[in-house]
Amino acid sequence: MTTLSNTEAYSLLSLSLACVGVLANTLQGDGGAPLTASIAFSGLAFSFCYALIRWLGNAFIKRGFKGRDLCKLKQTEIPETMGAVCAMVYLFILIAFIPWPFYKDIVAATSGGGNRDVMKELDQLETGRLLHRFPHNKLASYLSAILSLQSIALLGIGDDLFDIRWRHKVLIPAVAAIPILIVYFVDFGVTQMVVPTPLRPYLGELFDLGWLYYAYMALLSIFSSNSINILAGINGIEVAQSLVIALLIVLNDVLYLSFTPYPHPATDSHLFSLYLLLPFIGVSVALLMHNWYPAKVFVGDTYCYFAGMVFAVDGILGHFSKTLILLLLPQAFNFVYSAPQLFHIVPCPRHRLPHFNPRTGLLECSRAEFKKPLAKPIAEGLKLLHRLRMLDVEIDEKGQVVSSSNFTIINLWLVWFGPMREDRLAVGLLAFQTAIGLLGLFIRHRMAMLVFTQDNW
Amino acid sequence: MTTLSNTEAYSLLSLSLACVGVLANTLQGDGGAPLTASIAFSGLAFSFCYALIRWLGNAFIKRGFKGRDLCKLKQTEIPETMGAVCAMVYLFILIAFIPWPFYKDIVAATSGGGNRDVMKELDQLETGRLLHRFPHNKLASYLSAILSLQSIALLGIGDDLFDIRWRHKVLIPAVAAIPILIVYFVDFGVTQMVVPTPLRPYLGELFDLGWLYYAYMALLSIFSSNSINILAGINGIEVAQSLVIALLIVLNDVLYLSFTPYPHPATDSHLFSLYLLLPFIGVSVALLMHNWYPAKVFVGDTYCYFAGMVFAVDGILGHFSKTLILLLLPQAFNFVYSAPQLFHIVPCPRHRLPHFNPRTGLLECSRAEFKKPLAKPIAEGLKLLHRLRMLDVEIDEKGQVVSSSNFTIINLWLVWFGPMREDRLAVGLLAFQTAIGLLGLFIRHRMAMLVFTQDNW
Repeated sequence: MTTLSNTEAYSLLSLSLACVGVLANTLQGDGGAPLTASIAFSGLAFSFCYALIRWLGNAFIKRGFKGRDLCKLKQTEIPETMGAVCAMVYLFILIAFIPWPFYKDIVAATSGGGNRDVMKELDQLETGRLLHRFPHNKLASYLSAILSLQSIALLGIGDDLFDIRWRHKVLIPAVAAIPILIVYFVDFGVTQMVVPTPLRPYLGELFDLGWLYYAYMALLSIFSSNSINILAGINGIEVAQSLVIALLIVLNDVLYLSFTPYPHPATDSHLFSLYLLLPFIGVSVALLMHNWYPAKVFVGDTYCYFAGMVFAVDGILGHFSKTLILLLLPQAFNFVYSAPQLFHIVPCPRHRLPHFNPRTGLLECSRAEFKKPLAKPIAEGLKLLHRLRMLDVEIDEKGQVVSSSNFTIINLWLVWFGPMREDRLAVGLLAFQTAIGLLGLFIRHRMAMLVFTQDNW
Repeated sequence: MTTLSNTEAYSLLSLSLACVGVLANTLQGDGGAPLTASIAFSGLAFSFCYALIRWLGNAFIKRGFKGRDLCKLKQTEIPETMGAVCAMVYLFILIAFIPWPFYKDIVAATSGGGNRDVMKELDQLETGRLLHRFPHNKLASYLSAILSLQSIALLGIGDDLFDIRWRHKVLIPAVAAIPILIVYFVDFGVTQMVVPTPLRPYLGELFDLGWLYYAYMALLSIFSSNSINILAGINGIEVAQSLVIALLIVLNDVLYLSFTPYPHPATDSHLFSLYLLLPFIGVSVALLMHNWYPAKVFVGDTYCYFAGMVFAVDGILGHFSKTLILLLLPQAFNFVYSAPQLFHIVPCPRHRLPHFNPRTGLLECSRAEFKKPLAKPIAEGLKLLHRLRMLDVEIDEKGQVVSSSNFTIINLWLVWFGPMREDRLAVGLLAFQTAIGLLGLFIRHRMAMLVFTQDNW
């Protein structure tokens, strides 16, 4: 498992060569080149990440980045923190991609052959190209995005190394968001929000949030990263849920780019979003192929933070933070549902992973035992949840609550559908997440016309 | 040693408060504000770094970042890789500093009170301010510099974690230089070099280096980082030599800013250089206070790479790469001098640290023993070096070379001046480096007039 098989090696090599070929080709052509290049770079990202995960596995284990899979019969040690490899490859690809969307318009506009002095008028170029290059001033935003992502990678690795305390950990994404917020402040500075129609008589058409806007963006990073980090624990779920979110955003972007007439201010935002997400999908697929049941590597907190930050950065710079929150609803639900245990309103065991039954080979929901009787209102609350089928509660002959299933969406799924194998559990949760996401996007674009005067996607 | 003494805590707190006060004050004033802010941020960088080195020491040891000092009688374990802390604080400070030099000119130019719509003409602002704000397009360069430095921090930590092989290690700085090179390509793209007067008849006044210019910049990063990394091994030498270089560049910048009439194209470059170096001096002084003899922490490869990259980035963006090479002459000499051992022309022992004599408490030069007789020309070469007082060679009765002092400038110093205590050795080397550097700067500005038509500093 530390080398590539021949088939793998040849496949990755062919893919990489094809991508390099496509890239070389984009240097000749004109319109659409950056998006084509982004797809080719994503292919390269996949190949590099796949190979590196294999090659570095042993080195990670040797250096203490390793863990045992508690939901397996045979608990061999496998490498941890492989999300760091993902993040490094991703960042490297984003940096290498810079010249495609940003290469100085005036250079692209010369008569060719290196004659930089002979320029065509810029106007000539801007018209008629569907997927044009970015104006040069977007470069600072793009660089600040990379800086924020690199910061979260550094801090995430720090967390995986030093096991930072929970209450400090939560704030890591806010620290990593600082570069993007500062550049937003220096470069752009628009903190106005479009007011929904019903509120316009009171607030006007635009409402200036001021510094609250920055607080909102910082909170978005915290929410996005941590909500992915707590929906975790079974093979593949961290990476696969991130992939679902990424694919849904890509779907939103592609639909937009296909159906909206070209000269529209939001085109750039959606292209920007694609450029950030396509390579992310590349590295995540490579990681998922190693992290899916039965997992051969673990992803570490680094991956969860990193994925959440990719979405937050994408949402901030692509100006679709509300859509992003919509796509994170299952994670948000999981957080709210977990809150009673996270904030110790009911006792929280050290691990809330599902329980592996070695006889059946299936996962069962894990339970929190209440040694001391619970306070009356809390016990009643749990009984109510039980009746609503939102929890499984065990009651003794005296009517006391003695145990309940743990408060995570993963355990809830097992309460609903009974014990099942780890991969079926993951597939079920992912299908649920996809359905909610698609429904969310549908409602969002239908409803937008009701609350705002136009759908701003 | 893991907490701050009361005196330390109060001193750091007062310094931090004073710096915050100065920063708050810059928000009111006008000209000169960015440089004042940079100095205040450097004070904060010092305080944070000093405190964090103390607080994180135990966590580092626990996680296996630890080492023993071979040049001491009592070899207790002390934390390693503290350069990573330095780098993190430094990067954080550079990011927080962004609004000062880069806050949108149009915002700075409003009538105040948040009335962004009422703008004064930009020309009004640009004149008459000695230390004006940067034009907005420099932001991309600055961000790319931070990206490159963050990359070297990530890769350096990777190296300290996984002990990357020597031949891969050497290339790390070139990888980290990619962001700055790509942004230079996209944003600036000037690859012409001023040709020295004697060569002008053949090459013209400007010579376009094309891609060679990028290769040159990548090589500069490799050279700068690795040359600091190999002049290492005794307490404090890595940090102190970096501080000497940083202070010499700052001296060059300050002399320039003081003596050149204001509207000059190079003003920005020198300010840029100061903004990068002042916080670096802040964190390095904090680290040196813990790494100086007798060392309480080690700095790790991370620091050496990082320091070298700070200089390379500074030289590239400040357009004084030739001056930088001049200041790295002692390191370059050490590299050339080490080459016979590095490339295994003569046998190289595993460690080339000076030898600690526990009876005297002094360092003596360490020696490479030659079990097999050396090839004739090599043996003759060593004997010649011995006669030139550039090596200490031991010859047996048959005229065979049986051992020599190791090929590092540190051992050479001990050959010249005899055994001495570790801190005296470091002070001697640093005094030598400072003298060479000052002489270099003097010659550089004197000679520049001879080879170029004007001194471009």
